[in-house]
Amino acid sequence: MNKNKEMNYTFDSVRVVMVNTTEPGNIGAAARAMKNMNLSRLYLVNPKGYPSATATARASGADDVLSSAVVCKTLEEALTGTHLVIGASARQRNIKWKQMDVVGACSEIQKTTSVDSQEVAVVFGTEKYGLTNEELDLCQILMTIPGNPNYFSLNVASAIQVFSYQNYVYNTTTEFEKSSNELASFNELEGFYSHLAQVLEHIEYFEDKRPKELLMRRLRRFFGRAEPEKEEVAIFRGILRNIQPFKK
Amino acid sequence: MNKNKEMNYTFDSVRVVMVNTTEPGNIGAAARAMKNMNLSRLYLVNPKGYPSATATARASGADDVLSSAVVCKTLEEALTGTHLVIGASARQRNIKWKQMDVVGACSEIQKTTSVDSQEVAVVFGTEKYGLTNEELDLCQILMTIPGNPNYFSLNVASAIQVFSYQNYVYNTTTEFEKSSNELASFNELEGFYSHLAQVLEHIEYFEDKRPKELLMRRLRRFFGRAEPEKEEVAIFRGILRNIQPFKK
Repeated sequence: MNKNKEMNYTFDSVRVVMVNTTEPGNIGAAARAMKNMNLSRLYLVNPKGYPSATATARASGADDVLSSAVVCKTLEEALTGTHLVIGASARQRNIKWKQMDVVGACSEIQKTTSVDSQEVAVVFGTEKYGLTNEELDLCQILMTIPGNPNYFSLNVASAIQVFSYQNYVYNTTTEFEKSSNELASFNELEGFYSHLAQVLEHIEYFEDKRPKELLMRRLRRFFGRAEPEKEEVAIFRGILRNIQPFKK
Repeated sequence: MNKNKEMNYTFDSVRVVMVNTTEPGNIGAAARAMKNMNLSRLYLVNPKGYPSATATARASGADDVLSSAVVCKTLEEALTGTHLVIGASARQRNIKWKQMDVVGACSEIQKTTSVDSQEVAVVFGTEKYGLTNEELDLCQILMTIPGNPNYFSLNVASAIQVFSYQNYVYNTTTEFEKSSNELASFNELEGFYSHLAQVLEHIEYFEDKRPKELLMRRLRRFFGRAEPEKEEVAIFRGILRNIQPFKK
């Protein structure tokens, strides 16, 4: 381990996003977990019963993380300005997200944040059910936390603790792999997906056998998996613009 | 690391020992943290206000770990029968214990428990002060949990979560469920690329500023990176077929 390695920008470029949290105590515990591991940017989507004295009590000395938390109405709002979105899941899912464990996710985070001003969001769902498929549609990577195959019921703040610890260790012990190309931002990707949907309507691609919702989810998953660069999204947008003038 | 490693004896040979815990909620949270990471042997030295409904509530589905917890009067009692004692500390200490981080401790644990019926205890102190020097005198190794040098105030259950996670990961690796969907073959991909090039000609996408050769190379690189499945290539072929009938 490189003891003298300076704290690096990775920590400031990572958002922890908690979606529809029902127990304010978990928000406080998450703030404390984060601060212990040098993270500070907490986003709360529709937190229930927050702000709350319980959250503040559980935050202990991390009330600065809590008081600077950004409260959002939608997950999209919390993801605005990010370049890589990672969804946390207690289990592997039988669908085609790019899946990796916490170490793998931390490696992706490091690569992404090594480019100046690129940000990453790591998203955690509700206490009872985790993230919905609709929420996962906004994620490029599914991060699964390894654990007991016969009992996996990690408290959400504990999951954030595990991620934050692994991310800290990863960034204080591993040498950086620089990536040279800029990734597309969340907003650029969302803009591309809605443009794509619009053009697919235009060419009458969707039909009963090819339902829009299902197809768009598969396409999102495909593109997300490739982690598109800014320039690549520009290429696809150019192709879409060239399709539009065509009429039957 | 052995990928096919079965759940192994390490998990059953590790005791988590909590000394003078003052908040019963932390005991419940610790039980849950342990069970999630395949540990089950909890020892409680002089727990305050235990048993308690709060502990049970926080244990969630891990009440079996809680109900089989061994309550002891002294730390010595909790350590009887062990072969290696590791004390957890939030910080490095200015004294002469053998010190290591969590990964290092897990390595020692694995070595020790690889010998039949050898047991290890990992000891966690009180919420406020951690372990006393007298308690650390009973430990052979001091395990420090890495973290923010300017704020280190890990909740005791969070510390147990971090240790349990690292120990789990150290003793297993995650196998990712193989995608059940078949990948596209080389010929299918080549067929797709030439169809794509043909449609891009058709919509007059290529021009001086967008030379065919260069663009096709970038598109190949993009699609290749996503490792397309057979079905996904079929989806893209379907889209291309729907673009073709369109005329300007």
